Amino acid sequence: MAVRVGVLGATGAVGQRLIQLLEPHPEFEIAALTASESSAGKTYREAAKWRVDSPIPDDIADMTVTATDPDDVDDDVDLLFSSLPSSVGAAVEPAFCEEGYVVSSNSSNSRMAEDVPLVIPEVNADHLDLLEVQRDERGWDGALIKNPNCSTITFVPTLAALAEFGLERVHVATLQAVSGAGYDGVSSMEIIDNAVPYIGSEEDKLETESRKLLGEFDGASLTHDSVEVAASCNRIPTIDGHLENVWVEAADELTADDAKAAMREYPSLDLRSSPDQFIYVFDEPDRPQPRMDRTLGDGMAIAAGGHRASTFGLQYNCLAHNTIRGAAGASVLNGELLLENGYL
Amino acid sequence: MAVRVGVLGATGAVGQRLIQLLEPHPEFEIAALTASESSAGKTYREAAKWRVDSPIPDDIADMTVTATDPDDVDDDVDLLFSSLPSSVGAAVEPAFCEEGYVVSSNSSNSRMAEDVPLVIPEVNADHLDLLEVQRDERGWDGALIKNPNCSTITFVPTLAALAEFGLERVHVATLQAVSGAGYDGVSSMEIIDNAVPYIGSEEDKLETESRKLLGEFDGASLTHDSVEVAASCNRIPTIDGHLENVWVEAADELTADDAKAAMREYPSLDLRSSPDQFIYVFDEPDRPQPRMDRTLGDGMAIAAGGHRASTFGLQYNCLAHNTIRGAAGASVLNGELLLENGYL
Amino acid sequence: MAVRVGVLGATGAVGQRLIQLLEPHPEFEIAALTASESSAGKTYREAAKWRVDSPIPDDIADMTVTATDPDDVDDDVDLLFSSLPSSVGAAVEPAFCEEGYVVSSNSSNSRMAEDVPLVIPEVNADHLDLLEVQRDERGWDGALIKNPNCSTITFVPTLAALAEFGLERVHVATLQAVSGAGYDGVSSMEIIDNAVPYIGSEEDKLETESRKLLGEFDGASLTHDSVEVAASCNRIPTIDGHLENVWVEAADELTADDAKAAMREYPSLDLRSSPDQFIYVFDEPDRPQPRMDRTLGDGMAIAAGGHRASTFGLQYNCLAHNTIRGAAGASVLNGELLLENGYL
Amino acid sequence: MAVRVGVLGATGAVGQRLIQLLEPHPEFEIAALTASESSAGKTYREAAKWRVDSPIPDDIADMTVTATDPDDVDDDVDLLFSSLPSSVGAAVEPAFCEEGYVVSSNSSNSRMAEDVPLVIPEVNADHLDLLEVQRDERGWDGALIKNPNCSTITFVPTLAALAEFGLERVHVATLQAVSGAGYDGVSSMEIIDNAVPYIGSEEDKLETESRKLLGEFDGASLTHDSVEVAASCNRIPTIDGHLENVWVEAADELTADDAKAAMREYPSLDLRSSPDQFIYVFDEPDRPQPRMDRTLGDGMAIAAGGHRASTFGLQYNCLAHNTIRGAAGASVLNGELLLENGYL
Repeated sequence: MAVRVGVLGATGAVGQRLIQLLEPHPEFEIAALTASESSAGKTYREAAKWRVDSPIPDDIADMTVTATDPDDVDDDVDLLFSSLPSSVGAAVEPAFCEEGYVVSSNSSNSRMAEDVPLVIPEVNADHLDLLEVQRDERGWDGALIKNPNCSTITFVPTLAALAEFGLERVHVATLQAVSGAGYDGVSSMEIIDNAVPYIGSEEDKLETESRKLLGEFDGASLTHDSVEVAASCNRIPTIDGHLENVWVEAADELTADDAKAAMREYPSLDLRSSPDQFIYVFDEPDRPQPRMDRTLGDGMAIAAGGHRASTFGLQYNCLAHNTIRGAAGASVLNGELLLENGYL
Repeated sequence: MAVRVGVLGATGAVGQRLIQLLEPHPEFEIAALTASESSAGKTYREAAKWRVDSPIPDDIADMTVTATDPDDVDDDVDLLFSSLPSSVGAAVEPAFCEEGYVVSSNSSNSRMAEDVPLVIPEVNADHLDLLEVQRDERGWDGALIKNPNCSTITFVPTLAALAEFGLERVHVATLQAVSGAGYDGVSSMEIIDNAVPYIGSEEDKLETESRKLLGEFDGASLTHDSVEVAASCNRIPTIDGHLENVWVEAADELTADDAKAAMREYPSLDLRSSPDQFIYVFDEPDRPQPRMDRTLGDGMAIAAGGHRASTFGLQYNCLAHNTIRGAAGASVLNGELLLENGYL
Repeated sequence: MAVRVGVLGATGAVGQRLIQLLEPHPEFEIAALTASESSAGKTYREAAKWRVDSPIPDDIADMTVTATDPDDVDDDVDLLFSSLPSSVGAAVEPAFCEEGYVVSSNSSNSRMAEDVPLVIPEVNADHLDLLEVQRDERGWDGALIKNPNCSTITFVPTLAALAEFGLERVHVATLQAVSGAGYDGVSSMEIIDNAVPYIGSEEDKLETESRKLLGEFDGASLTHDSVEVAASCNRIPTIDGHLENVWVEAADELTADDAKAAMREYPSLDLRSSPDQFIYVFDEPDRPQPRMDRTLGDGMAIAAGGHRASTFGLQYNCLAHNTIRGAAGASVLNGELLLENGYL
Repeated sequence: MAVRVGVLGATGAVGQRLIQLLEPHPEFEIAALTASESSAGKTYREAAKWRVDSPIPDDIADMTVTATDPDDVDDDVDLLFSSLPSSVGAAVEPAFCEEGYVVSSNSSNSRMAEDVPLVIPEVNADHLDLLEVQRDERGWDGALIKNPNCSTITFVPTLAALAEFGLERVHVATLQAVSGAGYDGVSSMEIIDNAVPYIGSEEDKLETESRKLLGEFDGASLTHDSVEVAASCNRIPTIDGHLENVWVEAADELTADDAKAAMREYPSLDLRSSPDQFIYVFDEPDRPQPRMDRTLGDGMAIAAGGHRASTFGLQYNCLAHNTIRGAAGASVLNGELLLENGYL
């Protein structure tokens, strides 16, 4: 029997992707949709300007949207996927957790909190048990789990695959798609025939979330990894798919061939939304490319290529679909992990 | 009286920009236009598919194009600007020099030759005298001077401004415009809603040309600078303007404010095409941007911004108009330097 | 001595273009800048996110922005250029006119009012005297003059050039740039790798404003022209420059050569911002193109090309820079016409 | 048992789409791939620069490409899909037909020949029997069938749906994607931030092919329809999906609601690649849009919207995926029609 789930912030760009992924999902059944007060009481069709590239599912379109408030969501909903603006998420996600809901959230608030697991299932599924600590400390029946920022998800799996070589220093430059900023995040006049070398607080997310994801959980607390990361972030005129240039310096010798093998062999999981091949490695030096490769593994794979010896250590490029693997799909995958591990 | 000049490879993208810059130039008078055999004998209007954003000058349009051969160019032409494909340049530029022509070339062949000065006038005008060594060794009456690759020109001025701090390690990621590959270099199907993390041999150019440009010439030979550079190059959907993310590590302490001051104070020259302000430094963190800032100083300035303390040293962004400052304008500026220094 | 002018709605896209055009204008001196209440009291630098491709003029940057209210604008300002949202314009433009200000407005409100001249100086300068009727009827010391919508300005001059052939039916399809919708009018997610075949109420503007512009003023009232126009409007991923496909059917025989000659010979005016050649006609079938040709005549020319016999009558294409000739420059030109005709 | 098929011109853009559609097709089995002499003897992986957005099928990648010559193609291949350049097609397609092959061709040569059926199965399947006339006249064992140009396919189904109203005059303006010109057809420098109001001989194709498609076949000869069509064609910066603005004038009264109903009710076929809903009609005035709607019906549907009363008759917009429904998919559908009708 399917778990009844809800989507907090269902009308936004990530909310629509969540619906697109959850509607045909055999383990989850959409039972609640929330949005801002101004949308409450409307049908989803009225409340959302649907812009995903598949038609809006009819049964979803006719559902009534409620406010994002625990009092307005049915009690028999067990799992909530959240893609709220972070300021809203910070205010209401804990309220839902107190009321007993398990929340798998894409919002940036609380990602770095000590007792909140920040999880990419293929990378650090064992961090999930930080939820026990969380429940003890906060007295919640529910739970709050986070997935990282879309630009963090793109490169951390490749770092995880190379961890055995003793990573010490990482430089990463990002070329990020406009969908990462939401529907109205980037004006066409800002970005056509242009690039913007700045995304507010994004560099800090890559630098800190990566260390938490690669950190060690001893059953009681989490120690962040010692790898040092320097990030520079750019917005470019692409719709979907974040491309990243990465340089790594490791304690051990690390050749391009070593790195390719390690990435190819890095295991996927048996979760429903996990891709067969987690990291898809290209031999062609000009791949991956956003439009060509963002839908590998139905948008859930990481693509990598261009591995070569750098002046310092090794360099390569990686890519992920930022609104699927980097946002909605990441939250769904965390939901599947919660289910598999008995948290639902 | 104006120096009579010619353009080798006059029909290509950089050739057209050269004509756009040279036609109104008070010190130079266009007296020869060359192209491939198939264009020889045609008027320039017939031979070139003019695509620059100002109309083709009438007097230029009616000139007859000749083959790119010393026998076909008038003897009273003194200075040749070359934007030939590098394989062609390698074959014919030396032939012109032997015949006594001074060649200011944008082509990539011979840039790293020991006796060929590779010059950005504001950065290493003193390397010009390597031409004496060149003439001695090669027995030429003419001379061959090169400007660097467009992506190299973009960031080297900022490194020159920081040289006093003892630069040791540099990482640079480039976001390059399609015009850098010439009119037919990048198909629209390759680049719309996409980015390509690979430009053939481009990374090597940034890594090696930069050290030559920052090197020391003692009157007899040139010692390359010891700074180590790692580059990663990307093509993005912009028309003009290469944007670059730079991280620098220096021997001395180097704050963002230090770097901004050093860049702002780095002197321009009195050459006709030099911009008033050589490096234009923005305080706004989201600048420079290609479409907004590529025409600063009529396309001859370098723009920089986004200076901040990085995990390792300092990071910032820089930008230059790749077909003006990075190609045609660079060659013209070197022509002006040759004139000022009595080589014409 | 320069006329003291103000800009109503100075912080928007057209407002910034107005400042860019007016600041160096020898006949006008910017003495007032207005915006919404939330900007009042700030310097222009603080109030506007400057995005035009030339730096913000220093003296303008330091001016204090006032609310858009007659009480807040100095009495010694004589002429106001308005680029207000039409709902705001409808409310406040008449208030300024009552207080004696002459308003040259780009806003869409009141364009079709019987006593408001809608003017493209090269096309229907004689409609200006409708201001006498306006003043009589409204009892204003000031006056209100409008320029048409940007998509209307693009094709009406070509119709005016062909009027002698007895135009009967016109079909026009537009390919409009994103800047026509203002800075935040078109999201990048809407338009990259896309086109939108709908612009709210735009088709009606082309169909009705064109007939008013081509109408006859007998000194007392204006009769709209009888030409019938059908328009279909599209937004495409270009920054500036509206391109239009036009089919015309005329009472008299009208060949492609006739049409080209008539357009080439259609006179410009001696106003300061009028281009030397009003309608620039291309023989190349693939021109005009937005990025290549939008800056002809400093953005104030109309470009046309592709004239050929159609299945029905004649077809051709035309182009104008939508934020210069189609908006800010249109208002400035009307200001120059007002000055020349003694209305200031 | 599957029919053995070959692809003539297998390495180009449409050739790759053909392979993408044919490889999983249950009724067809790819048994031959041809290309130019320079590719003959190579594996398909070596010969083609694969750029479709799904990985190259392994078994196809390892096939050996032959020259496009009847002598080089196995006799047990029955059906050939052709996407050759038209000059090549004109030379070799008849040679294949003489040797007994049935050719379903997307190439533009011979489309207007009197004895060559030009077919969109949902529109004029009955024209297929023109093949009997063809075989009689040419003495072929094989047969040649054509699908129309991509821009023609986009709007003709909507005209067919309205035929009952007595169509008299049609104006159509196209906004065409770059993929219509092949991989190297449109340079990025031509089209970024631009539009080109000209596509060589395209307008003629819309004007003439449409009348042939809507014509009547009496068993012996084909009479073209009397509707008059005027077309204006534009290239815009989109990857896939041709959008068209259409105005129709009919003998009978034709309201927007009539037109929408007629389009919605226009039947699809039972062929494997036919979409469930042939013409998908939007009520939203701003749809269809290329990126949002080009994959309706797996790229085989026609989308229409924006129906409204025009100054003259009715206007609306339509859209089709130009390399699927407009090219490769059109040829495959014609292959299915040939199979169903016993021509294989």
